[in-house]
Amino acid sequence: MSAVRRFALTPGEPAGIGPDLCLLLARAAQPHALVAVASRALLAARAAQLGLDITLLEVGPGHWPQVPAPAGSLYVWDTPLAAPAVAGQLDPRNAGYVLETLLRAGNGCLDGSFAGMITAPVHKGVINEAGIPFSGHTEFLAELTATAQVVMMLATHGLRVALVTTHLPLRAVADAITPERLARVTRILDADLRNKFGIARPRILVCGLNPHAGEGGHLGREEIEVIEPTLAQLRTEGLDLVGPLPADTLFTPKHLEHCDAVLAMYHDQGLPVLKYKGFGAAVNVTLGLPIVRTSVDHGTALDLAGSGRIDTGSLQVALETAYQMSASHA
Amino acid sequence: MSAVRRFALTPGEPAGIGPDLCLLLARAAQPHALVAVASRALLAARAAQLGLDITLLEVGPGHWPQVPAPAGSLYVWDTPLAAPAVAGQLDPRNAGYVLETLLRAGNGCLDGSFAGMITAPVHKGVINEAGIPFSGHTEFLAELTATAQVVMMLATHGLRVALVTTHLPLRAVADAITPERLARVTRILDADLRNKFGIARPRILVCGLNPHAGEGGHLGREEIEVIEPTLAQLRTEGLDLVGPLPADTLFTPKHLEHCDAVLAMYHDQGLPVLKYKGFGAAVNVTLGLPIVRTSVDHGTALDLAGSGRIDTGSLQVALETAYQMSASHA
Repeated sequence: MSAVRRFALTPGEPAGIGPDLCLLLARAAQPHALVAVASRALLAARAAQLGLDITLLEVGPGHWPQVPAPAGSLYVWDTPLAAPAVAGQLDPRNAGYVLETLLRAGNGCLDGSFAGMITAPVHKGVINEAGIPFSGHTEFLAELTATAQVVMMLATHGLRVALVTTHLPLRAVADAITPERLARVTRILDADLRNKFGIARPRILVCGLNPHAGEGGHLGREEIEVIEPTLAQLRTEGLDLVGPLPADTLFTPKHLEHCDAVLAMYHDQGLPVLKYKGFGAAVNVTLGLPIVRTSVDHGTALDLAGSGRIDTGSLQVALETAYQMSASHA
Repeated sequence: MSAVRRFALTPGEPAGIGPDLCLLLARAAQPHALVAVASRALLAARAAQLGLDITLLEVGPGHWPQVPAPAGSLYVWDTPLAAPAVAGQLDPRNAGYVLETLLRAGNGCLDGSFAGMITAPVHKGVINEAGIPFSGHTEFLAELTATAQVVMMLATHGLRVALVTTHLPLRAVADAITPERLARVTRILDADLRNKFGIARPRILVCGLNPHAGEGGHLGREEIEVIEPTLAQLRTEGLDLVGPLPADTLFTPKHLEHCDAVLAMYHDQGLPVLKYKGFGAAVNVTLGLPIVRTSVDHGTALDLAGSGRIDTGSLQVALETAYQMSASHA
């Protein structure tokens, strides 16, 4: 693989801020060839709305770029909309378009056209409204790549947080923390930190499930019965795991300075600190896939589409992370 | 009440860093008369061990100080140990001593001798080992003051987080979030922000229970069935409540700048951000009591007792907060 690599960028929901982010980003040059998988007409119209002068350079299978696009220009793999997109107005007719951009990007990663893909937000509701079952990028890409278990990790400068469970009602979390799931997720996290982030022996801090990590069994027994035995087993396989630790004292400099990632048991245990620390500059990484995929950590922000009053911080970190992951991966 | 007020300071576990904190603090003058409820012999011995020259000024019922102690001195209400205390070595024989200091301080708040009390950490385990049932300062003071419901709030500069449930196994949390408990806790939080913190109309951000605050019922129904109706009822009583909001996006400047407190549904949802943000300078406040009580947010740190290598940041904030609360309360 040459030093310059090629990445797919999917702007996601056409009525949201995804197209705006791609255009704002294109004002400066990237170190790699970045290909927006999107409607050329949409990007041209949104650029006009934003008053941005961005040259759209058409590319596609058989004529891929070998160098980064110059500042002020963006490679586009034209993917037509079903209906004109209006900033801020969802239209179920374009749901198929959104999925087509993801298919193209995902398959392009699998066939080697792209070294990785970076996704801007989609709107689950409007896709479902169009009659298409869809529960998110992550699940879509897991299915596309026939991956049984993926792991959601959010990262910002100085902190990575991966989750054992993700979008589950809180009352279902405790039963979902099985030895099998915990072991599977921890192994994926460890393997991807090694293989995709180039960390020789990742040190992972593991949260308990209960407050104070169960306080010796007084506040819940899952640490004793599930988490500790599973971590002990994984340590015999060579994993460097610390914990289970109380989540409210784990997120302090004393602990975080000496780790490569935190493994939280559930969504609201791990993500508030990550998003607080990484406000506007956090990235969502899907681990366990055979391809590199990163994403912004925010939503479609329909009310801000076309306004120009948005921050590209999260997308910048998503790009940097994809570059880093594919370099280690190569 | 005069401008100078009197406060009780309990050093807690004699083998821990509580006595050290009180002595380190006494190097500088306080704006109010601070009375350590502790063994004079313990404080003298620990000061010698730390190489600190602190004058201990004996006070007690009938001869309370009316002015702050000068820098380099500390008022002490002598409360004898049962056995000599050694830094770092727990001794169940002193469990009764620890409780006696809390009783004196608590009763002194009730009878007006003190405007409030500030507590350094106790060690639950050694008290229980001595055969005394004890589950924490908060529960002890609730019982002493015949308070049916107290609320735990942690605070640091710029952020206050109160909890609907505290030390419960995670699997018990969802069922514990009843309309009655949520209403009771929210009313106490609102009332104490008004009465003890002097905030005319507190704005409170309320977390959902489930990830993404349930995402319209897709990730749990407690927001729809319990939280939203309860907040709606409380709003008719004049409370300024925002939410339920997703915990992972609530803790961002956009939201936090415009609120007086966050109400989290459970321990590990609210405290990691608070402790991350307030590292070394957070205070634990018990709301709902008829007295003012604040506490450091850390433990006994037995391994550091007598070393001098400790930070008084949390105790400083605990003092400032107690001063603030009793001023508004007065």
